[in-house]
Amino acid sequence: MKKYVFTPGPVPVPNEVLVEMAKPIIHHRTAEFEDIVKKVRDGLKYIFQTEQEVFILASSGTGAMEGAVANTLCRGDKVLVVNGGKFGERWGKIARAYGLKVEEIMVEWGRAVDPKIIETKLNDDPSIKAVLLQASETSTGVMHPTDKVAEITNKRDDVILIVDGITGVGVFPLPFDKLGIDVLVGGSQKAFMLPPGLAFASMSEKAWKFNETSDLPKFYFNFKDYLKSAEKNTTPWTPAVTLTIGLAEVLRNFREEGLENLHKRHQNLSHATREAFKAIGLEIYTKDQHSTALTAAIAPPEIGAANVIKGLKENFGMTVAGGQDEAKGKIFRVSHIGYIDKSDTVAIIAAVESTLKKLGHKFELGAGVAKAIEILD
Amino acid sequence: MKKYVFTPGPVPVPNEVLVEMAKPIIHHRTAEFEDIVKKVRDGLKYIFQTEQEVFILASSGTGAMEGAVANTLCRGDKVLVVNGGKFGERWGKIARAYGLKVEEIMVEWGRAVDPKIIETKLNDDPSIKAVLLQASETSTGVMHPTDKVAEITNKRDDVILIVDGITGVGVFPLPFDKLGIDVLVGGSQKAFMLPPGLAFASMSEKAWKFNETSDLPKFYFNFKDYLKSAEKNTTPWTPAVTLTIGLAEVLRNFREEGLENLHKRHQNLSHATREAFKAIGLEIYTKDQHSTALTAAIAPPEIGAANVIKGLKENFGMTVAGGQDEAKGKIFRVSHIGYIDKSDTVAIIAAVESTLKKLGHKFELGAGVAKAIEILD
Repeated sequence: MKKYVFTPGPVPVPNEVLVEMAKPIIHHRTAEFEDIVKKVRDGLKYIFQTEQEVFILASSGTGAMEGAVANTLCRGDKVLVVNGGKFGERWGKIARAYGLKVEEIMVEWGRAVDPKIIETKLNDDPSIKAVLLQASETSTGVMHPTDKVAEITNKRDDVILIVDGITGVGVFPLPFDKLGIDVLVGGSQKAFMLPPGLAFASMSEKAWKFNETSDLPKFYFNFKDYLKSAEKNTTPWTPAVTLTIGLAEVLRNFREEGLENLHKRHQNLSHATREAFKAIGLEIYTKDQHSTALTAAIAPPEIGAANVIKGLKENFGMTVAGGQDEAKGKIFRVSHIGYIDKSDTVAIIAAVESTLKKLGHKFELGAGVAKAIEILD
Repeated sequence: MKKYVFTPGPVPVPNEVLVEMAKPIIHHRTAEFEDIVKKVRDGLKYIFQTEQEVFILASSGTGAMEGAVANTLCRGDKVLVVNGGKFGERWGKIARAYGLKVEEIMVEWGRAVDPKIIETKLNDDPSIKAVLLQASETSTGVMHPTDKVAEITNKRDDVILIVDGITGVGVFPLPFDKLGIDVLVGGSQKAFMLPPGLAFASMSEKAWKFNETSDLPKFYFNFKDYLKSAEKNTTPWTPAVTLTIGLAEVLRNFREEGLENLHKRHQNLSHATREAFKAIGLEIYTKDQHSTALTAAIAPPEIGAANVIKGLKENFGMTVAGGQDEAKGKIFRVSHIGYIDKSDTVAIIAAVESTLKKLGHKFELGAGVAKAIEILD
């Protein structure tokens, strides 16, 4: 059976990129590879919309999240964590692992954080050094208002904004320099349509000031070493050579597609999927601003998400994501990131319709696909 | 021009493995991928010669080295570092980054550490908590006597032995359980003949006891999380899916080849290359026990290593490694790890002969190849 991946990472990788990565290996300390790193640096700056360096880490996104904390903060510092899902929770875990004091804003799953709460917390407690946020909370499909939060942190010299953009960068506008984000993290297996194994991070001038006094231990993820190496188009440690080569290819394609179109593509697929699901009577799990990286739908309770996921897998070879923690068994998540186009999106909507029909859900067959075609055309 | 990689990482990857990794991506939280992880766990235990778990990290080897320290030691602990090259030096840097007290045994480049010095140091200073060693010091081609050092640390309950086996595991015998190593680290782009991006680590019971009290911050490299996940044939963070799939393939081949043959292969290629180089009047840089991962040869001083390396690249498409730091410009290093067989080895020896002849080195052309064929046959 032909297989389709609609998970919010790993994502489908273009065949051309898979083939590029399957070429005979080259050594990383060569002019040839340095040329690739040079192109990747330029391409990442274009996508991150920054003049700062974007570091290429051989790790998954979590490693870059850890690096964001370890490179800026000090033992005992207090941080404000927005916890509105699985990945917000992870910020808290990382911060605690480093002996930081964690104040958490618990946000109901499916809801976005209210920036006013952040402002109040920062006003009330001047000892808070950083706000840790997801641009896109993948477990709930929410887009937190990074721009509004950045407006708040930008007014303060003593507070930085650390953003997990793992399912945000390349998906929707998140202009690093313009918004004034201080640390922004990305990952290869998301919008970058590569296998997992690479993570990215960028630091603002303000974050580098924090770095000067930061006393948390760091070695493999020491961004200062990456900065020094980047100037020579290399990395401090052996890079993930093949993934970096694939990245150069993807970034070349992104440049051709154009950043605006890249964002628009995700926006369209997300919009079409959401409206299609609504048209067949599904409730969307995300209550506030949607991340355009994925659509989180609530399965009809009498059917349950597990049956929908199973049906998609068995009859259509399609892998979608289930819910995590409190959303487990309740929702299924369809991703719009990676090498996915409008035809793939129509296909998954049709498969969801077919699966739901078989499972006894009542709706007008074809209504979802019709809605999607109307939007995607 | 056809290209050959003779560097001690990255190394040639078998085409069959490249193709395997170029297959359409699969999701990591699936029965299919869990089955791969199960096979990889078994295969790694076979190569590490251990009944302990071997963790699969999405990072380069340096990340696993950092993990080895962060998972066992405490702030302010004193460690004994064997610094006989670039990678020994790295142990010191990692330990210092974590606020450990570092006592270094400086070993002349090209020499192996004398285990007696380690014993004396441990006797003199009971506050030392760990010995940090390279099984194979890639910058000098030395094999340090891990077995003898393990005999010393095994006699003590309060000292662990942390071994960088990045160019040792799978190359020569380094039986984790039998020797009583406490933490052993490996990397994908070495004997495992994969692209860089995966690292491995195993911990002894004694190391796990140290882990109980270890207070160094760790998150991405927290081995306890990897242990918990391994039992469910998964990893705590998104794994480097394609590399892990390639690893399953490589480990299957290793099982067929057999561990003894795997070690013998490196032994033969190393022996043949060393004797061939001697036969054409080259001095070997490594003065004590040779690592069978690579051969480090001193270029004739009137020619210089840079010219040899350039000639191999330009006329034969062959990449070899130069020297680092104090060996820079002086030596060139030919690797025996990765997908390299006796014919490749004869080819590099012939290329070195041709290059040296053109550069004016006096020797009997063909003497090296003849010696190699004799040994490899």
